[in-house]
Amino acid sequence: MNKEIDKIIKTLSNKEYLDIVYHSPVNNELMPSHSKLKDIVNLFRKIIFPGYFGNASINNNNIEYYIGVNINNVVPLLKEQIKRGLYFNCSNNKNTNCDKINKQADLITLEFIKKLPDIRKKLSTDVIAAYLGDPAAKGYGEVIFCYPVIRTLTNYRIANALLKLNVPLIPRIITEMAHSETGIDIHPGAEIGEYFTIDHGTGVVIGETTIIGNNVKIYQGVTLGAKSFPIDKDGNPIKGIPRHPIVKDNVIIYAEATILGRVTIGENSIIGGNMWITHDVEPNSKILQR
Amino acid sequence: MNKEIDKIIKTLSNKEYLDIVYHSPVNNELMPSHSKLKDIVNLFRKIIFPGYFGNASINNNNIEYYIGVNINNVVPLLKEQIKRGLYFNCSNNKNTNCDKINKQADLITLEFIKKLPDIRKKLSTDVIAAYLGDPAAKGYGEVIFCYPVIRTLTNYRIANALLKLNVPLIPRIITEMAHSETGIDIHPGAEIGEYFTIDHGTGVVIGETTIIGNNVKIYQGVTLGAKSFPIDKDGNPIKGIPRHPIVKDNVIIYAEATILGRVTIGENSIIGGNMWITHDVEPNSKILQR
Amino acid sequence: MNKEIDKIIKTLSNKEYLDIVYHSPVNNELMPSHSKLKDIVNLFRKIIFPGYFGNASINNNNIEYYIGVNINNVVPLLKEQIKRGLYFNCSNNKNTNCDKINKQADLITLEFIKKLPDIRKKLSTDVIAAYLGDPAAKGYGEVIFCYPVIRTLTNYRIANALLKLNVPLIPRIITEMAHSETGIDIHPGAEIGEYFTIDHGTGVVIGETTIIGNNVKIYQGVTLGAKSFPIDKDGNPIKGIPRHPIVKDNVIIYAEATILGRVTIGENSIIGGNMWITHDVEPNSKILQR
Amino acid sequence: MNKEIDKIIKTLSNKEYLDIVYHSPVNNELMPSHSKLKDIVNLFRKIIFPGYFGNASINNNNIEYYIGVNINNVVPLLKEQIKRGLYFNCSNNKNTNCDKINKQADLITLEFIKKLPDIRKKLSTDVIAAYLGDPAAKGYGEVIFCYPVIRTLTNYRIANALLKLNVPLIPRIITEMAHSETGIDIHPGAEIGEYFTIDHGTGVVIGETTIIGNNVKIYQGVTLGAKSFPIDKDGNPIKGIPRHPIVKDNVIIYAEATILGRVTIGENSIIGGNMWITHDVEPNSKILQR
Amino acid sequence: MNKEIDKIIKTLSNKEYLDIVYHSPVNNELMPSHSKLKDIVNLFRKIIFPGYFGNASINNNNIEYYIGVNINNVVPLLKEQIKRGLYFNCSNNKNTNCDKINKQADLITLEFIKKLPDIRKKLSTDVIAAYLGDPAAKGYGEVIFCYPVIRTLTNYRIANALLKLNVPLIPRIITEMAHSETGIDIHPGAEIGEYFTIDHGTGVVIGETTIIGNNVKIYQGVTLGAKSFPIDKDGNPIKGIPRHPIVKDNVIIYAEATILGRVTIGENSIIGGNMWITHDVEPNSKILQR
Amino acid sequence: MNKEIDKIIKTLSNKEYLDIVYHSPVNNELMPSHSKLKDIVNLFRKIIFPGYFGNASINNNNIEYYIGVNINNVVPLLKEQIKRGLYFNCSNNKNTNCDKINKQADLITLEFIKKLPDIRKKLSTDVIAAYLGDPAAKGYGEVIFCYPVIRTLTNYRIANALLKLNVPLIPRIITEMAHSETGIDIHPGAEIGEYFTIDHGTGVVIGETTIIGNNVKIYQGVTLGAKSFPIDKDGNPIKGIPRHPIVKDNVIIYAEATILGRVTIGENSIIGGNMWITHDVEPNSKILQR
Repeated sequence: MNKEIDKIIKTLSNKEYLDIVYHSPVNNELMPSHSKLKDIVNLFRKIIFPGYFGNASINNNNIEYYIGVNINNVVPLLKEQIKRGLYFNCSNNKNTNCDKINKQADLITLEFIKKLPDIRKKLSTDVIAAYLGDPAAKGYGEVIFCYPVIRTLTNYRIANALLKLNVPLIPRIITEMAHSETGIDIHPGAEIGEYFTIDHGTGVVIGETTIIGNNVKIYQGVTLGAKSFPIDKDGNPIKGIPRHPIVKDNVIIYAEATILGRVTIGENSIIGGNMWITHDVEPNSKILQR
Repeated sequence: MNKEIDKIIKTLSNKEYLDIVYHSPVNNELMPSHSKLKDIVNLFRKIIFPGYFGNASINNNNIEYYIGVNINNVVPLLKEQIKRGLYFNCSNNKNTNCDKINKQADLITLEFIKKLPDIRKKLSTDVIAAYLGDPAAKGYGEVIFCYPVIRTLTNYRIANALLKLNVPLIPRIITEMAHSETGIDIHPGAEIGEYFTIDHGTGVVIGETTIIGNNVKIYQGVTLGAKSFPIDKDGNPIKGIPRHPIVKDNVIIYAEATILGRVTIGENSIIGGNMWITHDVEPNSKILQR
Repeated sequence: MNKEIDKIIKTLSNKEYLDIVYHSPVNNELMPSHSKLKDIVNLFRKIIFPGYFGNASINNNNIEYYIGVNINNVVPLLKEQIKRGLYFNCSNNKNTNCDKINKQADLITLEFIKKLPDIRKKLSTDVIAAYLGDPAAKGYGEVIFCYPVIRTLTNYRIANALLKLNVPLIPRIITEMAHSETGIDIHPGAEIGEYFTIDHGTGVVIGETTIIGNNVKIYQGVTLGAKSFPIDKDGNPIKGIPRHPIVKDNVIIYAEATILGRVTIGENSIIGGNMWITHDVEPNSKILQR
Repeated sequence: MNKEIDKIIKTLSNKEYLDIVYHSPVNNELMPSHSKLKDIVNLFRKIIFPGYFGNASINNNNIEYYIGVNINNVVPLLKEQIKRGLYFNCSNNKNTNCDKINKQADLITLEFIKKLPDIRKKLSTDVIAAYLGDPAAKGYGEVIFCYPVIRTLTNYRIANALLKLNVPLIPRIITEMAHSETGIDIHPGAEIGEYFTIDHGTGVVIGETTIIGNNVKIYQGVTLGAKSFPIDKDGNPIKGIPRHPIVKDNVIIYAEATILGRVTIGENSIIGGNMWITHDVEPNSKILQR
Repeated sequence: MNKEIDKIIKTLSNKEYLDIVYHSPVNNELMPSHSKLKDIVNLFRKIIFPGYFGNASINNNNIEYYIGVNINNVVPLLKEQIKRGLYFNCSNNKNTNCDKINKQADLITLEFIKKLPDIRKKLSTDVIAAYLGDPAAKGYGEVIFCYPVIRTLTNYRIANALLKLNVPLIPRIITEMAHSETGIDIHPGAEIGEYFTIDHGTGVVIGETTIIGNNVKIYQGVTLGAKSFPIDKDGNPIKGIPRHPIVKDNVIIYAEATILGRVTIGENSIIGGNMWITHDVEPNSKILQR
Repeated sequence: MNKEIDKIIKTLSNKEYLDIVYHSPVNNELMPSHSKLKDIVNLFRKIIFPGYFGNASINNNNIEYYIGVNINNVVPLLKEQIKRGLYFNCSNNKNTNCDKINKQADLITLEFIKKLPDIRKKLSTDVIAAYLGDPAAKGYGEVIFCYPVIRTLTNYRIANALLKLNVPLIPRIITEMAHSETGIDIHPGAEIGEYFTIDHGTGVVIGETTIIGNNVKIYQGVTLGAKSFPIDKDGNPIKGIPRHPIVKDNVIIYAEATILGRVTIGENSIIGGNMWITHDVEPNSKILQR
């Protein structure tokens, strides 16, 4: 048995069998760590929603200590992961200079921390929207502590801020974490306004170039996707072209509706469940199942 | 760098930035613990399906020891979480008297334990239904050990029993756990009869006031949801109004069908895949895709 | 309180209450372990995608050591789980001879290890397909490290190989693990060709007897399911009858489409989103939403 | 085999076999937890020696956050263990009233926290003494971070303060923890002045009623023990009688010396290695091996 | 750097460098596990001293469940370690037949379990002796829960019983565990009567062929050792010759006393601290420091 | 209560209360990690004694993979700890240049790895010495796997090699780890020849400047210590003066003997138990208890 296994080992270590599947890092830099990123997101959850997350005996007198420690602790952890993301990117672009990554990671981390008050503010509008949108909700607390939409949007809003700071890989990992936990797949590149909520959520897809206004509500199974995408002469999809919907303020999209392509859903519109939309929708429209 | 970070800490600890997102507990009582509730549900799984869950060397001679220890162990764990749920509720309703919570938690825990035989009985009918409903199933054992539907229904039937004992927050956490693992979102308030099964399951939504009879089978992506809900003069949704479907005995609902509002699906009916239903359906109907 | 709890313990340990829900093992053999199987799949991920998974400081000089150790470590772990699967099967088929299980597990483990190069080869085609199919993808690395489709297909391709070696229970556990993490439910019995990809993926169902050709792409919410299944005279579903679709090479199936029954989707066809198909589709067809 | 094992189980659960070895708690109160007490002592180590213990990125700007959080976190943990100690005591003294234990535990915890600055002050004199007493020491940092004497004295000074607040059981557990780690056995009841140090330390014994002045240094294997103790009419040793040595200021006691009984070693004395002392020693004496 | 490291790897894997330090197992059987043996000893502690160890909510009604589960759980764990010990022995004695080890391990495990009531009985006499021998002890409970002597004797009495059942390696590991925790080094081969106690204990050595009667008390640093031992013609020490002291009933040996060789300390004798004894001592003697 | 606790927090964070006890790191560099160093020593144990440590299924065919991976894994872990040790040193010597520490740590790590074959060679002579010196030993395997002397000497020989490479702090931590586990306190600066063994070991002290030849055996409680040490004009002990014994080849030192100061014990000498030596001993002497 040993010999046969050894043959397999040799095969699997062989250069030609490693094409595509093997990552040989620059400078022995490690890949980003899924579990550390989970810890980091959990630390942000404690910072954003103090008293709800973190088993701490927090109160009005000591809250500054807890916020202070959590932020001081998250800074080096986040910096390390950002650095790994930058190195990963660098090692895939051979002629890039990887020397300044350490300083870059410091700067990005600081910029991100500065955005936390804004992230918290947006999430608190999402909490209100989720509460107002669900008669089953008993209060803000239940929404913050139990609702998948808040879990997802916390990850999304963190990931979106990191993406805008040009952090590679990490934003996608953070939204995929939420995707795995809640079945809601929001690309970190999507832009989403305030007072946003998703009910139930499983199966929701919000694509990379989607733009969503304020006060929008969507239900489970809704897709805001691309209709098609152009391919370059080598057969590779062309990156960065706007190809997902624009959803204006105060729109409601019911369960399982599918909206595809760079179309605009005008403000105050209602899209019925199961609808299939590939064209613009006028403001104040009500498009329902026949 | 330190100064800028410190400024953010002060901002995030500032009273006005804490509105909505901050929970200041009564008596330093902790929030319910997701991970302890996971342990508790796992203990119930060992009690309900002995030999399948729990790595114990269980057999006919020693089974009473194992059931005995698992129940004795789960009692204080469950009581603690129920207590936390009651305190959470209390701290959100300032003029309530929180003094009797400890005794209340003792009583509720005992009442819940008494319901375990009934929960097991119902789950064993669900196991049969899942086995009979899937040609790919090799036996009851595979269904109990691998099928997401049994995992979900175990959580749901526990959560439903706790909700009926007026435990706040905990039931929802327990069903959301299953939602996250299986993509099946059953509100703990729904009422579901015996011999119930869900095939595949991802995307299923069963709302708070849904009533399901015996021997019902549904497929992935089925929604039993609300069509709309009334709002009070302050703009808050009115709680507790029946707004989800009633599904009678022996109904089958195929994949991606959506049934909305307080409508009744009569017994022995079949609802085809992808159907969109917002009105009552006569008994013995067969409503299919055109 | 103690007396009442004791009564419940006695009830739950009582033979008549244990019907259906209780597993009494042959020879005290343990059930397969979900967490060990998770470890095993993670070890395979390290073997298949070296440098991406495993925190190791891997490089061109030492890769053989890492592959060597990971394979040597996974062999006894996998053998143990296969053995448990075989014993579980055996204890459910009382008149089977369980004596040779140990040797059988050794042989199956070896046969499985031999298939690893082929599994890696297929997965590398899936990586290419996922990259080419998504303009948001930055490179192979991001696809391997972050995309749920690769996570799912890794589990599926391992599970499928184990199923072909007649390992009971384990394959299903491994695909359910992926189902839980990604919302993509592929039965281990399905046959899937090379260059396969799924975008977003939540809600996808691929049934037990499905056959998929090369270079097929499907989107979230697609079902390749059974339309109905025959029942034997005892009311039990008849096992093993082909009842899921055959999808030929170069087919694209858009979001939420449902294809049911033993129908054939001819090569180079495109099935539009939300379509409901229960009949054969000619090659080169384009079936779209009206 | 099962029957024989069951017989042993019945025997071991039988009342007459449980005499002496069985603890049946009041109110289901748990025993103190060794591992929680370890965590608590580690938290105190972080509070007393910030920057040395705790992986935190502590600096002059954020130190108050870290001290603040560590103290806020240790308070409920310590209170819980003190409560368990009090309940244990209570359940062993049947006619005591156990009702006020909760409040008592709150008060004791607060009193203990108030003593922390004094404990830190004394330990910092011990650090100086250890550094000055060992030519191998490179600096205060090495002494704090590596030397068993500081580890032991930290536990001892915490335990001694708890004992003076009449906490049962916990002080002894804390000093035994240090005994196990360092081989230095200091009873929490001993009284020890400032600038105390022990070199190497293994085998040192310092008994319950020992009194040690300031600036005393002892070496490995030194015993400050009892010579004998009176027994009451029931054959039980009489508690609380002073029976261990008094060691005055500026005394050095070399390795393996044994000093027994309520004798006084006068100030500025030197006791040679291996000496056996059972009588008073004049101040300024030098008692050496012949 | 990589090349140099690789050279070292090759050197360290080279056959000639592996002499003496390398263990190549029979049948891939693992070495005994220190951490599993720690778990096993902890399980025995829970069985022997119920209510003191194990965080369980044990009481008079449910104690049989807890004892039952702990014994049922410890049986397969212990059997596995015994099996490993037997295989280790077997692989070092090449011409032994290793086939029957599995059955042998079953039998030994059962025989050991049968001895538990006797082990508990002896340990309860040790608890009494420790309590009566120390004026600082507050009660049996403190002795059981905190005193190193009871921790050590629990390990020793378990190890001694296993050694008498001819289990290789495991007994020594178990006593070394206690040696590491308490500084008390009792060889599992020593024979020790009832009502035995050791005060403080660090530095105590009790050799392989020592025989100790009932009601003996010793203090820290006492050695019951060998004076010398004969060597065979190959220079190897001859095994199994009685070479350690016999200590009769009711003897007290004070701190740091050393007794060497196969001498007998007659009953009711007192050996003073620091004494050096290499000859027989008459019954009722009192041998003290001059 | 909160106010009083807050006052204590402010006090403990106050600059004047932080004198001596506070470490403010250069560049936020962390302190060395005790637990990581434990992991590192365990990895070396697996490399030095393959098959004994590490749960791996190692055999003659795959040993190079395991050695290869363990060494590749230990390199970055060790480097990180060495770096922390160097930074700690640097931050205590303010005018030192800390810039080159990273490269320095790389070099030292490599130099250390090169010494592994020699460390293994020396340890294998120690194994032989321990086996030949103890009639209770059943074989080399038992000595390697169970004897505290081999555990201690493994730590010591690693620590000694690191100290010679001028690594600060880490060597002492590694020998203190062994001191805590075995009660044997060997300073990493001591020089010890081949075929060295210690029986039982608790209480042994071997000082910083001790020199021990080949084939030396010592017993429990032996001290090789300093008699006194000179102090500089500031009252600080002068570092680095030879002040511990030189023990020549083939010496045996029996239990509890104490040898103090820079004296030489001539070759082939025997020092009896409990002896107190502060002067040179001629070769071939036999100094015994009167």
